[in-house]
Amino acid sequence: MTESFSVDLNCDLGESYGAYQLGHDEAILPFVTSANIACGFHAGDPTVMKKTVRLALQHQVAIGAHPGLPDLVGFGRREMAVSPEEAYDMTLYQIGALAGFVKAEGGRLHHVKPHGALYNMAAVTPALADAIAEAVYRFNPELVLYGLAGSALIRAGQKLGLRTANEVFADRTYQPDGTLTSRRLPNALLSDPQEAIRQVVRMVKEGNVRSQSGPEVTIQADTVCIHGDGAHAVAFAQQISQVLKNEGVLMQTVRPTP
Amino acid sequence: MTESFSVDLNCDLGESYGAYQLGHDEAILPFVTSANIACGFHAGDPTVMKKTVRLALQHQVAIGAHPGLPDLVGFGRREMAVSPEEAYDMTLYQIGALAGFVKAEGGRLHHVKPHGALYNMAAVTPALADAIAEAVYRFNPELVLYGLAGSALIRAGQKLGLRTANEVFADRTYQPDGTLTSRRLPNALLSDPQEAIRQVVRMVKEGNVRSQSGPEVTIQADTVCIHGDGAHAVAFAQQISQVLKNEGVLMQTVRPTP
Amino acid sequence: MTESFSVDLNCDLGESYGAYQLGHDEAILPFVTSANIACGFHAGDPTVMKKTVRLALQHQVAIGAHPGLPDLVGFGRREMAVSPEEAYDMTLYQIGALAGFVKAEGGRLHHVKPHGALYNMAAVTPALADAIAEAVYRFNPELVLYGLAGSALIRAGQKLGLRTANEVFADRTYQPDGTLTSRRLPNALLSDPQEAIRQVVRMVKEGNVRSQSGPEVTIQADTVCIHGDGAHAVAFAQQISQVLKNEGVLMQTVRPTP
Amino acid sequence: MTESFSVDLNCDLGESYGAYQLGHDEAILPFVTSANIACGFHAGDPTVMKKTVRLALQHQVAIGAHPGLPDLVGFGRREMAVSPEEAYDMTLYQIGALAGFVKAEGGRLHHVKPHGALYNMAAVTPALADAIAEAVYRFNPELVLYGLAGSALIRAGQKLGLRTANEVFADRTYQPDGTLTSRRLPNALLSDPQEAIRQVVRMVKEGNVRSQSGPEVTIQADTVCIHGDGAHAVAFAQQISQVLKNEGVLMQTVRPTP
Repeated sequence: MTESFSVDLNCDLGESYGAYQLGHDEAILPFVTSANIACGFHAGDPTVMKKTVRLALQHQVAIGAHPGLPDLVGFGRREMAVSPEEAYDMTLYQIGALAGFVKAEGGRLHHVKPHGALYNMAAVTPALADAIAEAVYRFNPELVLYGLAGSALIRAGQKLGLRTANEVFADRTYQPDGTLTSRRLPNALLSDPQEAIRQVVRMVKEGNVRSQSGPEVTIQADTVCIHGDGAHAVAFAQQISQVLKNEGVLMQTVRPTP
Repeated sequence: MTESFSVDLNCDLGESYGAYQLGHDEAILPFVTSANIACGFHAGDPTVMKKTVRLALQHQVAIGAHPGLPDLVGFGRREMAVSPEEAYDMTLYQIGALAGFVKAEGGRLHHVKPHGALYNMAAVTPALADAIAEAVYRFNPELVLYGLAGSALIRAGQKLGLRTANEVFADRTYQPDGTLTSRRLPNALLSDPQEAIRQVVRMVKEGNVRSQSGPEVTIQADTVCIHGDGAHAVAFAQQISQVLKNEGVLMQTVRPTP
Repeated sequence: MTESFSVDLNCDLGESYGAYQLGHDEAILPFVTSANIACGFHAGDPTVMKKTVRLALQHQVAIGAHPGLPDLVGFGRREMAVSPEEAYDMTLYQIGALAGFVKAEGGRLHHVKPHGALYNMAAVTPALADAIAEAVYRFNPELVLYGLAGSALIRAGQKLGLRTANEVFADRTYQPDGTLTSRRLPNALLSDPQEAIRQVVRMVKEGNVRSQSGPEVTIQADTVCIHGDGAHAVAFAQQISQVLKNEGVLMQTVRPTP
Repeated sequence: MTESFSVDLNCDLGESYGAYQLGHDEAILPFVTSANIACGFHAGDPTVMKKTVRLALQHQVAIGAHPGLPDLVGFGRREMAVSPEEAYDMTLYQIGALAGFVKAEGGRLHHVKPHGALYNMAAVTPALADAIAEAVYRFNPELVLYGLAGSALIRAGQKLGLRTANEVFADRTYQPDGTLTSRRLPNALLSDPQEAIRQVVRMVKEGNVRSQSGPEVTIQADTVCIHGDGAHAVAFAQQISQVLKNEGVLMQTVRPTP
């Protein structure tokens, strides 16, 4: 009897805004199993959201809300001192807004993944993590909460009984404590696509990752973040998808644990 | 056997924004039966929306989304050349956002009433009216669509089979064709509260209104708009509520026709 | 003795916003003589503005403010019912903001050209045209006001004694009354670049344009609008610049009339 | 021969936005010598800015730009991880925008005081302080830079040769190192107006303040921040102004050192 492996490939989509185009949504959708759709705060607008929801449904990809900080000019990447109450409120607002489009198209919202600085703050700040998890739970306790593998956000979701998806990154390096190497440090990124893919296969099949300083670290890889913009995004998505298939890894979105 | 009359009293609420306070939400809620809650485009923010939803639920008042144009500095009062598709998208976005708070609080969204310039454009522009009605319908066909009595928006809702609520104004005067006197003209407003209340009683019990140039006009008054800001808003709401009660008019939100 | 001709080639620049890139600013700058820089309302942000001002100074191109409606998601292209006072205020605000960057870089603001729907409304609405011209005049009466050739905006500027620049379009067709063919009509655009260039040469050297229905119309061509985005923008700018040179037309920004 | 004392009383004004009213600008202006006018990022809009500039000129009060973070819903009070370059750009943008209105009215910009979280971050983060000071200097080296007394922002201004104004607070308590007691701690505020006024008189005439834990701290009080909103703002402004007069303190805006 052979062990079977599966993993979710997720991508941030719907990041265009008005006249501004960003990303290669249509080209990347065939290679992912979950789409995190921007909700108008850090990126996206109502028209982009509707179109992206339709695209995701056409490709039978699981749809998630991708709420961010109210900072369009900063693309939601600048940390802001928001209170837990504000984090709850902005998360719930954005989930609702996206869910409206999903409902109107006859679809079903599957998950929530905070964006950028909100994601990073929620990974290390329990009060923010709890607030975000509560917004997800109160909107719909059957939603899956995506967060950095092993982070405060994952724990906050588990406390409430939410299904969670531990997210790992193909092209980021890891520290001995399982956290990501800061982008401010050298070697934060794996620039070689082959190495990035090998890292993912290892995380999925062996449950560990080689950290920057050498030792292996245990990591749970429920879902892998695939970038949707940049010159080589589509080619990389296609490649990693092909390698995982060859390795016998089933690509599917995160299902509820029984 | 006596004929019975009923009418809905609605008020625009949740129009504060961040540090900015507007309106007397708590004081006015005891006197209305429906609340139209701003959704963050022309007024309101996520925190204000949550608090206003909670207030409305405490007062057992029907909750409606009050979507507006994306024009905070203009309070949604300046007409914008939005396309029908954009009107659909912005309406659906805002309904969803508010519905998220209602859902999280265990309530139920009851109606949708466009705000300001969006309301006015939808009253006279069939393509916009159809787009807005479709957004409401696709979100939830059981919602009630509030619009200017006898307007294109009401007809758009009826075409789709939506329940509609013909809205009348206590303090505005009417033209012989049943439309409101433009605010740019003199005599657009009834400044005497007693006269305003008599006009409402007449619209509700007799189904007509005396127009500016004399003749009576037939009008259907399902719901009356009560202003929530201004120095005398609360006193007026209390008064009209008392007079309607004395006149034997049942105040209740708009119910589905059987 | 030969007659000499000169014309200004202007281009809308600095239309990127945060993470969103738009246009080919660096590539187009060598071929134009004036840059209209977005000021943060319909496009542009403070960082983009600073960088674009620096680029324009490096290329020794005249710098203009390009104020637009407060409608980022609509790129300032949707008409809004702004009052003349609001038009004055938003124009002055944006001129000042851009002028700050010009001043900090040791440059000098040369002109103002309204953007999109604000430009279109100012071309046909004298009250808005007067308000915009007054904002320019009160900021600095030596600035040049760019507007649609022969429009209400040009007349408003002339009334105040402002220098004005009548703007023509290479790729748009004209009506017998000298106005642009509406984009909603067929044949609004000249799709053949060679025909567009011939139209410009004729407008500059002969002072007329062949209208859609046949007859020639007199037109004053002080400045030609060159598009900065689109696949062929740079190639077209290079071509028109070369043809004008071959035709003996001096390309230089609009100078004050003596 | 008697020693003479003088101090500037400054107030944050122009914080209304669209339909939203905030503060008592007209009532407070007679009692202050400098006005810090919001520039549209954390508060204020172009129309409010124009009106506030006019009011300040009528009252012959020195006009300053009051730039803030791009966070209207948070009123610029939430710290954001902006880079020094972004701080420079947003400061310069806002100074320019306000200066446009001042110029159009024939006035002269006098100073710059950052607002809220930008002020607080600039007080303790030299890189941000340097960026803000540089924006002020490059716009106009004759402007006065207002900042927290003895803070990094004051030092950054001094390094560039800018005139600076050390700001003190009437109603805040101080720590033994001369910094303000955090608002998160008890006793951060002096609730007794008489005590607040005595603290100011002492800071102005004796150059020190009694800190929370007892010992006196040397402090330079060039300018005192008077609050413009709140129920008792106007009464307090009137009172402190009267007491300072009785104490022989000359109230005047900050002049350049010879």
